[in-house]
Amino acid sequence: MKIYLAGPDVFLPDPIGIGRRKADICARHGVSGLYPLDNAVDPSAGDASLRIFKANEAMMDAADAVIANLTPFRGPSADAGTVYELGYMAGRGKLCLAYSNDPAPYAERVARSGNVTKSSNGRLIDQKGLAVEDFGWSDNLMMIHALDLHGCPLLTPPRAPADIWHDLTSFEACVRLAAERATSRSS
Amino acid sequence: MKIYLAGPDVFLPDPIGIGRRKADICARHGVSGLYPLDNAVDPSAGDASLRIFKANEAMMDAADAVIANLTPFRGPSADAGTVYELGYMAGRGKLCLAYSNDPAPYAERVARSGNVTKSSNGRLIDQKGLAVEDFGWSDNLMMIHALDLHGCPLLTPPRAPADIWHDLTSFEACVRLAAERATSRSS
Repeated sequence: MKIYLAGPDVFLPDPIGIGRRKADICARHGVSGLYPLDNAVDPSAGDASLRIFKANEAMMDAADAVIANLTPFRGPSADAGTVYELGYMAGRGKLCLAYSNDPAPYAERVARSGNVTKSSNGRLIDQKGLAVEDFGWSDNLMMIHALDLHGCPLLTPPRAPADIWHDLTSFEACVRLAAERATSRSS
Repeated sequence: MKIYLAGPDVFLPDPIGIGRRKADICARHGVSGLYPLDNAVDPSAGDASLRIFKANEAMMDAADAVIANLTPFRGPSADAGTVYELGYMAGRGKLCLAYSNDPAPYAERVARSGNVTKSSNGRLIDQKGLAVEDFGWSDNLMMIHALDLHGCPLLTPPRAPADIWHDLTSFEACVRLAAERATSRSS
């Protein structure tokens, strides 16, 4: 089983190191981890971003599954590129798994950067008057239920680990689940 | 042509009104706008979020195209639910269009909520040391090039309109492009 490793890990100070660790964990569980190529393309090349896109899309098309890192990134939700990739893989009918190293519910995450209040009709709203999803999930319901129905429910730790970007406990739990699926498919 | 109307418009104080306006614009251009059903489901029902997901996914499956509102939502990037849906539609091979009422490049958007600096290796980084995509696009490259290759390039106004959530000029421009595609397909 080939698994596309989606996540904002490519934006960490050590993007290649974390990719290697993830691929090693996959190998230990008998599956193959495909890590995006953002860092293999010269960013100063004129068409660098298009080449990254094409390489990542080809990698997704070659994969049987995705494990997305949905840890919140620059706001209460997951990284947009990662979310796009999760949607793409769901659309292609691939097995979808994901984890978030921040287990807090979405409304709590929104409240970190400003007041969340109840409007007169009982809806939770943010400071700009925009409704806040309040189903108790940790992120937008489209991702949560895509995982429920097209793979495995989102994995989160009981508490956020000290290093939310480098702790791979929940990632490894996803790999284990994917490897079990791979075994049951082939038997 | 049936067009799924993705966007955080469902979180506005007037979600049904904006949906009607969008559907009316579609009708004027001879296409059919399908507006998500988040607001047609009783939010207090135990399985409300799952019902919303299933209804939205069925609506996407029934559509030939998507027009996604990628105006930044609670951070520098688009709404996660909308991005998931754009990815899903791209994965399904549907025609992908989108607009953002904020034309600012991504790095500028990130700088609004904290310093962006150059690291020693020339990479742009945010306050947490995470790399900031710096290709001049207004959001993550996966969405930008998905639109380039699976539909039409992202539409943005020259300047952000006074009301970024209710100005539908760029939305209508997307509808016009989609309607032209529908005509050229059927002729």
